[in-house]
Amino acid sequence: MARNTTVKADHNAPPITRMLAELVVNHPSKGWSDAVDHEAHRTFANWVGCAVGAATHETVEAALAGVMELQPAPQASLFGRKEKVDIANAALINGISSHTFDFDDTHLKTIIHPAGPVASAAQALAEFKGYSGRELMDAIVLGIEVSCRVGNAVYPDHYDRGWHITGSTGTLGAAAACARLMKLNVDQTQMALGIAASQPVGLREQFGTMTKPFHPGAAAKAGLMSALLAKHGFTASTRALEAPRGLMQVYSDKCDWSQITEKLGETWEIALNTYKPFACGIVIHPSIDGCVQLRQQHQLKPSDIAKVTVRVHPLVLELTGKKTPQKGLEGKFSIYHSCAVGLIFGRAGEHEYSDAVVNAPETLLLRSKVDAIVDESMDEAAADVTVETTTGQRHHIFVEHAIGCVENPMTNDQLKAKFIDQASAVVGSTEATRLWIWAMSRAA
Amino acid sequence: MARNTTVKADHNAPPITRMLAELVVNHPSKGWSDAVDHEAHRTFANWVGCAVGAATHETVEAALAGVMELQPAPQASLFGRKEKVDIANAALINGISSHTFDFDDTHLKTIIHPAGPVASAAQALAEFKGYSGRELMDAIVLGIEVSCRVGNAVYPDHYDRGWHITGSTGTLGAAAACARLMKLNVDQTQMALGIAASQPVGLREQFGTMTKPFHPGAAAKAGLMSALLAKHGFTASTRALEAPRGLMQVYSDKCDWSQITEKLGETWEIALNTYKPFACGIVIHPSIDGCVQLRQQHQLKPSDIAKVTVRVHPLVLELTGKKTPQKGLEGKFSIYHSCAVGLIFGRAGEHEYSDAVVNAPETLLLRSKVDAIVDESMDEAAADVTVETTTGQRHHIFVEHAIGCVENPMTNDQLKAKFIDQASAVVGSTEATRLWIWAMSRAA
Repeated sequence: MARNTTVKADHNAPPITRMLAELVVNHPSKGWSDAVDHEAHRTFANWVGCAVGAATHETVEAALAGVMELQPAPQASLFGRKEKVDIANAALINGISSHTFDFDDTHLKTIIHPAGPVASAAQALAEFKGYSGRELMDAIVLGIEVSCRVGNAVYPDHYDRGWHITGSTGTLGAAAACARLMKLNVDQTQMALGIAASQPVGLREQFGTMTKPFHPGAAAKAGLMSALLAKHGFTASTRALEAPRGLMQVYSDKCDWSQITEKLGETWEIALNTYKPFACGIVIHPSIDGCVQLRQQHQLKPSDIAKVTVRVHPLVLELTGKKTPQKGLEGKFSIYHSCAVGLIFGRAGEHEYSDAVVNAPETLLLRSKVDAIVDESMDEAAADVTVETTTGQRHHIFVEHAIGCVENPMTNDQLKAKFIDQASAVVGSTEATRLWIWAMSRAA
Repeated sequence: MARNTTVKADHNAPPITRMLAELVVNHPSKGWSDAVDHEAHRTFANWVGCAVGAATHETVEAALAGVMELQPAPQASLFGRKEKVDIANAALINGISSHTFDFDDTHLKTIIHPAGPVASAAQALAEFKGYSGRELMDAIVLGIEVSCRVGNAVYPDHYDRGWHITGSTGTLGAAAACARLMKLNVDQTQMALGIAASQPVGLREQFGTMTKPFHPGAAAKAGLMSALLAKHGFTASTRALEAPRGLMQVYSDKCDWSQITEKLGETWEIALNTYKPFACGIVIHPSIDGCVQLRQQHQLKPSDIAKVTVRVHPLVLELTGKKTPQKGLEGKFSIYHSCAVGLIFGRAGEHEYSDAVVNAPETLLLRSKVDAIVDESMDEAAADVTVETTTGQRHHIFVEHAIGCVENPMTNDQLKAKFIDQASAVVGSTEATRLWIWAMSRAA
């Protein structure tokens, strides 16, 4: 039986499971700048708005109907809904709703949507156990630090292999946040991370289905359960992350340990978090931004447009190359549809990804005029957009940093407008405004 | 940004997600031989015995304490305990207890322990919903067929990569069994498999900790939840298993589709299931069997023994190479300890893996005399054992098929004795006997 059973034994791997546990337990409350703490509040508020906005979507209805078969205890709230469920399933459902519209936050270095898994777990636990806003925000910053640093270490190989990195790293972040909230000690927190390491969630193959938003929800639930078990003495490998057959090396062929160890506790990944102005995959944003800008600059009407050419990095087309989406959800994975609505409406919110708009004749017509070209020399975060008019004019724009990215962030006013727009459709504008204020002042 | 974002696109991949869903839904009740059905009953009974036997172990206590924080509804029973919890967490806890003693069933082709994930999910659901014994056994045979065929397709690469294959394939088997029980249609069952595909559970790094038995439990829970969501219309990729970035190719570099498609619905993997006579990892069984046989043949006493030499496949030592176990659980991953108890006691049950025996001076002394040698030419299922006595005699045995394997199976009497031995320690001999009869006659 000739077979290679050796592993990439890396005996130089630092004890990152322990190091991360020590950070989570020992770092002082609000042990970071006001700017970082403010970004944490923006992250939390944006996550709440997305969860409320999708609260009555069929994805959430289906998941909740499944959960209700368990007759869960009414421990924690679901954003935008009246039902309460146990904290593990509240983490699941809020995690699902917050990612359903693909409108949540993005850590652009890794394409992780960090709040979904981490905040969904922490919020459910904090509500039920009565933890303070300060404790909650500390847990979220530290949990996101764990998942994003692990993501930094394995990106892009792990993602290229096919993992939906939001869910696969999210269990660790959720476990870390819950361990912090429950004040587990370092040994227990190390175990919580270890138990979570056995439960990576998420395949990119699921993009365009309900199982995509399931990923952050399931990661939140798994991380929360891991922390609950660790609290009661459940054990795991002390080196579950870094061992030769630990998580990092099982789910990635690349592992840059320095991404975890360097300046740990000094810099904060949440400071790099961004918020989407468009309700679709982040990789289409530069293209939409270009279309919206050209529309505005040249007062373009759909009937003026003869041809649209978008040059993008290969990954963009790989993720969003659906030429003929049939449903709203599929439209989010179509650069063709997204550019078309950017040019028609000057925006790409949830409405522009409805079934009706995806199938409208006007959309179909303009979509057929969009050509997407792969260009290896382009950065993933950029797009080069050219519109040719029926009168033979050529309008061109190169978008290096789309609106919403770190270099060109949404303002608080823009973020609030996005929040109110989403939330008021579900809970009304008064409650939406109340929720915005509540979210932005959790520990501010 | 030079980066390879291509995948091993295999456009010849058959539609296995659909094919497995069709099998699960459409195969007739007891559509297999009496012999296969009898093996299914042996599988079920052995699983019940293991779950009862470990019901009060600290691993189960810790996990249950974590679950109780959710205030679960009393929907389903936990073997060997008075508490009831919701069906998802009953699947978790029974899955954990059934694997805690490493004493459960083994599909030797893949080293999958198939009953843990599949029966734990199916039993909880069947109890709560009142499904018949026949429906339960049908679901278990079909669920095990799904997980073991997927295992056959990716073994050994997937396992060598570091996955605990019992949990990583187990979510699929559990989802399949629950879909069958709930009479989901083919589309829904395909979705259940798809949702489950995003939740592989288990790292080999966890061996020797409580998280190892957590794997089949968490897989059972994830599979059950996947089926519940699918029942209510939750969607996933229709090609979640076979797509270029589907589960199979994300978690394995090898994927032999023919292992899934050939004779599907004609042969049954459960017919190849085996039961452990020894309470430890299956790969040490040939070595223990050799020691037990030499002890009996030559009436060896510990004081007679000068040296023990065991030649085994490299994988055996990789999995069970702990030289100085400190705890009972670690002893299960020590070929040195296991050979020592085989020679001292003539058996290797749960008692021989207690903390007390692992640390007993007599064990330590004999353990120090055991030498394990890697031999690439050995089969994984074999062992070559030589004992040298203090008087200079050499006793040798080559074990090609250890007791308990397909070629040398435990008899029903031996299986019953193992069951009663385990269960009566927890629930008393009367209840243990009742449980054995109940388990062996579920649909017989």
